[in-house]
Amino acid sequence: MIFEEKTISSEIAYTGPVFRIRKHLVETPGGQSIRDIVEHSGGSILVAVTDEGKIVMERQYRKALESPFMELPAGKADPNEEPEITAVRELAEETGYTAGKVKHLVSFYPTCGYSNEHLHIYICRDLVKGETHWDKDECIEIMEFSADELITMILNGEIEDGKTIIGILFARQAGEI
Amino acid sequence: MIFEEKTISSEIAYTGPVFRIRKHLVETPGGQSIRDIVEHSGGSILVAVTDEGKIVMERQYRKALESPFMELPAGKADPNEEPEITAVRELAEETGYTAGKVKHLVSFYPTCGYSNEHLHIYICRDLVKGETHWDKDECIEIMEFSADELITMILNGEIEDGKTIIGILFARQAGEI
Repeated sequence: MIFEEKTISSEIAYTGPVFRIRKHLVETPGGQSIRDIVEHSGGSILVAVTDEGKIVMERQYRKALESPFMELPAGKADPNEEPEITAVRELAEETGYTAGKVKHLVSFYPTCGYSNEHLHIYICRDLVKGETHWDKDECIEIMEFSADELITMILNGEIEDGKTIIGILFARQAGEI
Repeated sequence: MIFEEKTISSEIAYTGPVFRIRKHLVETPGGQSIRDIVEHSGGSILVAVTDEGKIVMERQYRKALESPFMELPAGKADPNEEPEITAVRELAEETGYTAGKVKHLVSFYPTCGYSNEHLHIYICRDLVKGETHWDKDECIEIMEFSADELITMILNGEIEDGKTIIGILFARQAGEI
């Protein structure tokens, strides 16, 4: 038996450049409780496969962990932007590639316990290389690996980014890479 | 070339029951920028396999999406708690099971772009059923599925929780289920 949690009251408790926090007071079967929700516009993630069968990866510094991370290219949706538009835009901005074929693979919630962030993974083929257009505070290293190399890096714990693990393992399980 | 982002200043901008927000002013190659980081104690996730080869799943209401979600059992670490202790505690509290065998599968960061949350997945076998001990605001439905059923639900988009997709696909890729 699943009980809906009725909102008694809610308010914006914090607003920042990437997300805001909405604090809810809710009614649960056990009484009232606080639910802080990260409100985030979501984003899109790219499994971009070159004509040589390599997958485009990025390495960038992540302040949250004070460390560089190996990730699939990805980006935050602009307000009211369709996920496939975000995908095509971010692939071009971050890697310089445009894709002849773009196909939706899977959508998921990375932290459904406390955030409404919704992420959408696309597989891109027929890539054509152009210029990158990074945001002024972005600093990205572009690399390419075979699918088998990435699977090995995931199994070894060398890839620690959740969206990247999902993109590669899902694409492999679906027979796409 | 990866540039470290030096912190110019940082402060706690919000404190709630599950996480707090630390706002950083950082130096990037393109100038100063704001980095809001969700500070979270992390947690553990269980791929608990019964003697019949079924995997224990939970269905619970998630306020962030105003919807019930199908998930692997999981829980937040208590302050300074070791991830394997969190795993064993949460398995018992949420599902009533204790496990004779507990093995680490993989650790990952669900949202490295703006959170330090670190999640750890364990596979549990030799399960013995006992009593559940839910938090007063938890309301959970326990279900069991075969690994093949869960893989199909992931490929069909019926399972949308990121940590659950990683747990099942990683365990399958590693030959554990």
